[in-house]
Amino acid sequence: MTDTSKPAAKARAISGFPEYIPEIRRAEMRWIDTIRETFERYGYVNIETPSVEEVETLAAKGGDVDKEIYGLQRLNAEGDDKGVRLALHFDLTVPTARYVAQHFNDLTFPFKRYQIQRVWRGERPQEGRFREFLQCDVDVIDQDGISHDFDAEIPLIAMQALNAVGAGPIRFMLNNRKILIGFYQGLGIENAADVIRVVDKIDKLPASEIERILTGELSLPADTAKACLALAQIRSTDNAFADEARKLGVDNALFEEGLAELTTVMNRLNAADKGACVAEANLGIARGLDYYTGVVYEAQLIDYPEYSTICAGGRYADLVGAYIKRDLPGVGISIGLTRLFAKLVKEGVITGERASPTDVLIARFPENDVLELDGIANALRTRGVNVEVYHEAAKLKNQFRYAERKAIPYLWFAGDRHEVKDLGAGEQTAADPATWLPARLKG
Amino acid sequence: MTDTSKPAAKARAISGFPEYIPEIRRAEMRWIDTIRETFERYGYVNIETPSVEEVETLAAKGGDVDKEIYGLQRLNAEGDDKGVRLALHFDLTVPTARYVAQHFNDLTFPFKRYQIQRVWRGERPQEGRFREFLQCDVDVIDQDGISHDFDAEIPLIAMQALNAVGAGPIRFMLNNRKILIGFYQGLGIENAADVIRVVDKIDKLPASEIERILTGELSLPADTAKACLALAQIRSTDNAFADEARKLGVDNALFEEGLAELTTVMNRLNAADKGACVAEANLGIARGLDYYTGVVYEAQLIDYPEYSTICAGGRYADLVGAYIKRDLPGVGISIGLTRLFAKLVKEGVITGERASPTDVLIARFPENDVLELDGIANALRTRGVNVEVYHEAAKLKNQFRYAERKAIPYLWFAGDRHEVKDLGAGEQTAADPATWLPARLKG
Repeated sequence: MTDTSKPAAKARAISGFPEYIPEIRRAEMRWIDTIRETFERYGYVNIETPSVEEVETLAAKGGDVDKEIYGLQRLNAEGDDKGVRLALHFDLTVPTARYVAQHFNDLTFPFKRYQIQRVWRGERPQEGRFREFLQCDVDVIDQDGISHDFDAEIPLIAMQALNAVGAGPIRFMLNNRKILIGFYQGLGIENAADVIRVVDKIDKLPASEIERILTGELSLPADTAKACLALAQIRSTDNAFADEARKLGVDNALFEEGLAELTTVMNRLNAADKGACVAEANLGIARGLDYYTGVVYEAQLIDYPEYSTICAGGRYADLVGAYIKRDLPGVGISIGLTRLFAKLVKEGVITGERASPTDVLIARFPENDVLELDGIANALRTRGVNVEVYHEAAKLKNQFRYAERKAIPYLWFAGDRHEVKDLGAGEQTAADPATWLPARLKG
Repeated sequence: MTDTSKPAAKARAISGFPEYIPEIRRAEMRWIDTIRETFERYGYVNIETPSVEEVETLAAKGGDVDKEIYGLQRLNAEGDDKGVRLALHFDLTVPTARYVAQHFNDLTFPFKRYQIQRVWRGERPQEGRFREFLQCDVDVIDQDGISHDFDAEIPLIAMQALNAVGAGPIRFMLNNRKILIGFYQGLGIENAADVIRVVDKIDKLPASEIERILTGELSLPADTAKACLALAQIRSTDNAFADEARKLGVDNALFEEGLAELTTVMNRLNAADKGACVAEANLGIARGLDYYTGVVYEAQLIDYPEYSTICAGGRYADLVGAYIKRDLPGVGISIGLTRLFAKLVKEGVITGERASPTDVLIARFPENDVLELDGIANALRTRGVNVEVYHEAAKLKNQFRYAERKAIPYLWFAGDRHEVKDLGAGEQTAADPATWLPARLKG
């Protein structure tokens, strides 16, 4: 019945806030479950924090992130209440820092945690950029010092998770900030942080342009700029990177320390089964943030080299910053789940699953007693079978069509002798409600 | 090393935004997984919607909800951008209505969906009221008409879910708006909606006070008010409620229709295994919202009768309202997961689980090759075992203490002959990395 008195108001998607039909959402859920399972396989425990932090907590990280922060404002707030004191978090690092400081005495260190939550950024949406998106973070945080084991374990966990969901070939690029900073020190460069920010653009700008900025804006001598550029162009999937870097003739202890650390990490990654992931030492990646102090990671889809980074992280000397009177160093990585998943949906790599979890539909005809059908359904459910009883006595044709649309694999006919039709194979056989299982639950 | 130069800034919880230590969060995750599993057992499919809707979408529901809505405001917005166009959703019903209208052609009806998401309300926090909380909604929505089967199925699913998590004895109170409206019509009451809102307070106000409002503010004759009150006081766990209601002498077809519908629902619930849940026909519950048109549900913790409703729902004639030019009726229920879970944590009913998913810790000593320990760990992980390799060669005492603090049940000693110590039983036995399983994964 069409009610023409009702205005068909718009029901539209909001740009930058992804939403999926059930087929795609089921695939996304499977991804999340699998990632979670992988993180737990390595002994990491889940935490969740509120979506909201105080504005001053979020701002504590500095930089110009405030432009991207969504503050909260009660729509009918009045007077003193009009100030924006709370805001949605824009990453999971700041909330984790606050969490670790707040619950410090309840945690065991090294604290191995993962966190899978939505985060928000008030940016202009474009391909690969969302205003609301899921991040999957895995970090280990310790007191005072932290084992270098985790430099390799953290990207390995991310690789295992990405392999387990079938995210396809992914290149993990690794570097160590000590290599860069030591190299720049060895060359007598004083504004190392500025140089890092410029060199980090090596995949986005042509080499000549990087060189122009280094000699121009940053006033480096031409041969120094050339050396920085040469370092940034070194990459290898084995340990050749270290000798190549040493050939540039810089003598610096921090530089050597960084090369040794990265060599250890590459050895450990190359001893592991990395599935569809590739580990590449890449002295051109730097991660813009000053936050990182050792190894850094950045991963991209090999089949979509123009697409933005889908996973990134590194080692930091102090997570918790101003919240607590001691240093809490850590190593962590973040998988940009929405960014990655949405791309693979868009490219048709992820096509979705069937729109229903139902294993079997119990057919219903006028002669059936619904309480009896409920009894069969409950007997099956006890063994983990997902069951629907058709919601009314109807023609077989209609019940078939319903099962077909939802891709339900089995149709159950109740009677003195129960029968189940396998709708894929077309076979119909006798079945006992006390023992029957669908293929999904067999061995 | 304590860094005295750092100010220990506050890292504090924000009132109304719950956050748990890992032990409690693990219990919450198990709850969510179990509820999800139960919903799928009945063939319901998961959807998620953005946390954010347009303000006009949220306001379309009417009423004075706008006071509770958190609008979003980019912190550095300027000029035209300063208007609040987006807001956090305050329930999952409005987003589902928008979702169904928007994806109408991609859905199969009756559309059986569940949704487990955070919602936000800018209210003053108090016991049982949060500003950010998890709702678990399960609804079935059909076109034009919808089977009365779901009137019983929906509360049954909620009961099964609450039993499965062990939420303890819960009273489900059921009524039917047709009973109330038909009764009031039969008594010649014209402002039925106002009477419903007053009678709905029967559990909060004394009967004499309700009667005073009915005869005073609502100008009902004294005997009419008495009849309304008498109806509202009827409750039974069997079908006695119907005869008791009929004894009040009102003759009305809608009233009889409501009694018949509720009788059918009670029969079906009483034929099912309801575990620790009780089903009670309670003609005093009304649900304030005009939205409901048939059966209504409200559930409370039997052990905490003063605590607020932890689960509620009912049948509605039209979900989608202004978005689409046809009626989409439905039946649904919402479990207030945070409200329920937080109460049971507070009362010590939920005490949390161990702070780690790790099954076995692989001990590490100076003589061990870490790549070899990694190999053992990975062999175990392949079979679903959650494994940590201790992060440094250390004294056995330290590694024991770490396992103890995290309540890790097994400690693995690598060697020519591998041994596993069951830290609970204290027994140490030989073990093969290719076959060993912890008790958790055995049969």
